[in-house]
Amino acid sequence: MKAIEGSITAPKGYIGAGIKAGLKKSGKEDLALLVSEVPAAVGAVFTQNKMAAAPVILSRRVVKDGVVKAILVNAGCANACTGERGMVDAEAMVRTAAQLFGVPDEQVLVCSTGVIGQYLPMDKVTAGIKTVFGELAKDKGEGVALAIQTTDTFIKKACYELTIGGKTVTIAGIAKGAGMIHPNMATMLGFVTTDAAVAPAVLQQAAKQAADNSFNLVVVDGDTSTNDTFAVLANGMAGNSLIDSTDHPDYPVFYKALETIAQDLAKLIARDGEGATKFLEVKVTGAASREDAKCAAMAIAKSPLVKTAFFGEDPNWGRIVCAAGYSGAALDAGKVSLVIGGITVVENGMGTAVDEAALHAAMAEHDVLLEINLAVGDASISVWTCDLSYEYVKINGEYHT
Amino acid sequence: MKAIEGSITAPKGYIGAGIKAGLKKSGKEDLALLVSEVPAAVGAVFTQNKMAAAPVILSRRVVKDGVVKAILVNAGCANACTGERGMVDAEAMVRTAAQLFGVPDEQVLVCSTGVIGQYLPMDKVTAGIKTVFGELAKDKGEGVALAIQTTDTFIKKACYELTIGGKTVTIAGIAKGAGMIHPNMATMLGFVTTDAAVAPAVLQQAAKQAADNSFNLVVVDGDTSTNDTFAVLANGMAGNSLIDSTDHPDYPVFYKALETIAQDLAKLIARDGEGATKFLEVKVTGAASREDAKCAAMAIAKSPLVKTAFFGEDPNWGRIVCAAGYSGAALDAGKVSLVIGGITVVENGMGTAVDEAALHAAMAEHDVLLEINLAVGDASISVWTCDLSYEYVKINGEYHT
Repeated sequence: MKAIEGSITAPKGYIGAGIKAGLKKSGKEDLALLVSEVPAAVGAVFTQNKMAAAPVILSRRVVKDGVVKAILVNAGCANACTGERGMVDAEAMVRTAAQLFGVPDEQVLVCSTGVIGQYLPMDKVTAGIKTVFGELAKDKGEGVALAIQTTDTFIKKACYELTIGGKTVTIAGIAKGAGMIHPNMATMLGFVTTDAAVAPAVLQQAAKQAADNSFNLVVVDGDTSTNDTFAVLANGMAGNSLIDSTDHPDYPVFYKALETIAQDLAKLIARDGEGATKFLEVKVTGAASREDAKCAAMAIAKSPLVKTAFFGEDPNWGRIVCAAGYSGAALDAGKVSLVIGGITVVENGMGTAVDEAALHAAMAEHDVLLEINLAVGDASISVWTCDLSYEYVKINGEYHT
Repeated sequence: MKAIEGSITAPKGYIGAGIKAGLKKSGKEDLALLVSEVPAAVGAVFTQNKMAAAPVILSRRVVKDGVVKAILVNAGCANACTGERGMVDAEAMVRTAAQLFGVPDEQVLVCSTGVIGQYLPMDKVTAGIKTVFGELAKDKGEGVALAIQTTDTFIKKACYELTIGGKTVTIAGIAKGAGMIHPNMATMLGFVTTDAAVAPAVLQQAAKQAADNSFNLVVVDGDTSTNDTFAVLANGMAGNSLIDSTDHPDYPVFYKALETIAQDLAKLIARDGEGATKFLEVKVTGAASREDAKCAAMAIAKSPLVKTAFFGEDPNWGRIVCAAGYSGAALDAGKVSLVIGGITVVENGMGTAVDEAALHAAMAEHDVLLEINLAVGDASISVWTCDLSYEYVKINGEYHT
């Protein structure tokens, strides 16, 4: 498996486009269509937010059939908290696209992202769908990545080539997300395409597991959005023998590729966290269970006090240990240890006589690894986050207006 | 029951003082002693953080006996993550004070607040205890309130006079806390004194319940400190008949006074939240249970997206509904309603055609009430929080260094 240059349309049989439909106040690209030449198997996971947006409610139904022709995405308006009218609008989006492709409505997945509580300007959306349909091309994958963004500052993508069952398979992914990022599936929009042949039920299971090991381990601000969607399409055009079970000999290599790409995208989301000036990996070891490890890691990664300390490059490590302490995870307070950027700052629950200048220098790096050992077991986990800066406050105090 | 002017030493039989012992880098008051002329009954609750500081571990033992002569508090150093040496230091503080009063060690409660992971400069502390002992006076209650502060910007106190069993009773409270504020007992330092006669077991139960209904309903940043302590002293000098059971006819009026003072202090903490420019009350109604109501209210109060929106006075109400949606609380997505500062912005799960200028004006008030009805039951709760500003980031990026 090797990383290659390539957009979301790099795998065989995918085309796409992104256009300016006039939904974003900024006037930037805001409507995207991603299409498989032949209907593709789909696996997807959605937000667990009880106020799930209309497109999420609709797409959950679509995914049940396991086959998708196209994914339609708009940014600029989340179509959430929009009641019956929002459902009617989402259905109209699907119908318009389905008719253009001549496929059943059930083969179009629809996603929206942007401000909550506003209705879609359906005249612009409908016109836009027709326009973007006319633009579809193999080389317009970058346009798709661009049109799904909101406060993102760069395109989040990854692409790999690997061999499955003697066939060359390509797998590519894109994601959007910079704020309202919290693990509880799927915390953003993420799409993966592959030309591998994978049965829908297997793909569904793989998508769920990959999300748990990637997007669900990222936190920017602890808010879980109403619109999060992660969908994986597999159209089989690589010609490998169908991976029809998780026991299939080719499943592990496929899953590994999917998980890798999902983790790549997840880390890019943390790296592009709203206002982020640093990328932080929080690694918890010595935990009693994976759940405990995640609980402690998330408490640290979510803590505004930890995040502002890293923004200020302030070696106030007590806040990290404190967050582990209130997380609920089991720990041995007299044995806990903490290493920041390779420097041991806590041993046996006590501060070491650390050189504050060296610690400050370690925290001044752009990428910092925190490792905390809870000293009660063997479980471990890594989660990814960013610091909390003035810019986060600025972005989120001014987003809507 | 009426509010009166008065410090923490206003009730009969209390004296106190706060001095500059050289523990704070700022050079401000940092060592306080609060004393009851006669040993007082005590009820107290402490942080649930597993990395509880040495003074918390020690004070938990003290409280078991139910009788306290004095409370000794230092700011500037939390004596947390300090291992055995920290315990030895906390014990030495207690011993020094106990010897001055000629009481058993078990009658001195000790609290520390400040930076985690540093050892107390015991020479300064020991000298300071002797100095503050010599300063003790009836009219130096304000000094106690001042010396327990860290990033607080004003003194948090409340005082009431009431009649219990025909006797005039005074009850007074102080608190410190502006950051690292999250419900899980007690999220700060808080002390209440009264001259009412209340048995230790009853006082313990009352303190726990009052904390649950006050300090545990406040959130600034969601971090639970290693040092939180809330202690209530009752020395009986008012001469009322001893409240020796929660079934005692005078218990309700006493409890009501204690809860009122605890809520006053809790609200002052939210009002002084680090960098706060606004005071927000989040009221959840129509919840399936009190737990669900608290869960939804806390999710809203903790959300950085909600808090930054209020800082920016950005009428982005979708974030509030979104937070309720991911909180885990049961809700009817099609019936949820939301009122901000008296303006109905969501009805039946959908945005109303609200006047954005009016909504913006409502959010521009210093004190704002958010009311969200989950439409599934009869339970309700109010929690108190503040907005998230540039100043919060500044304070916490620069605190330690």
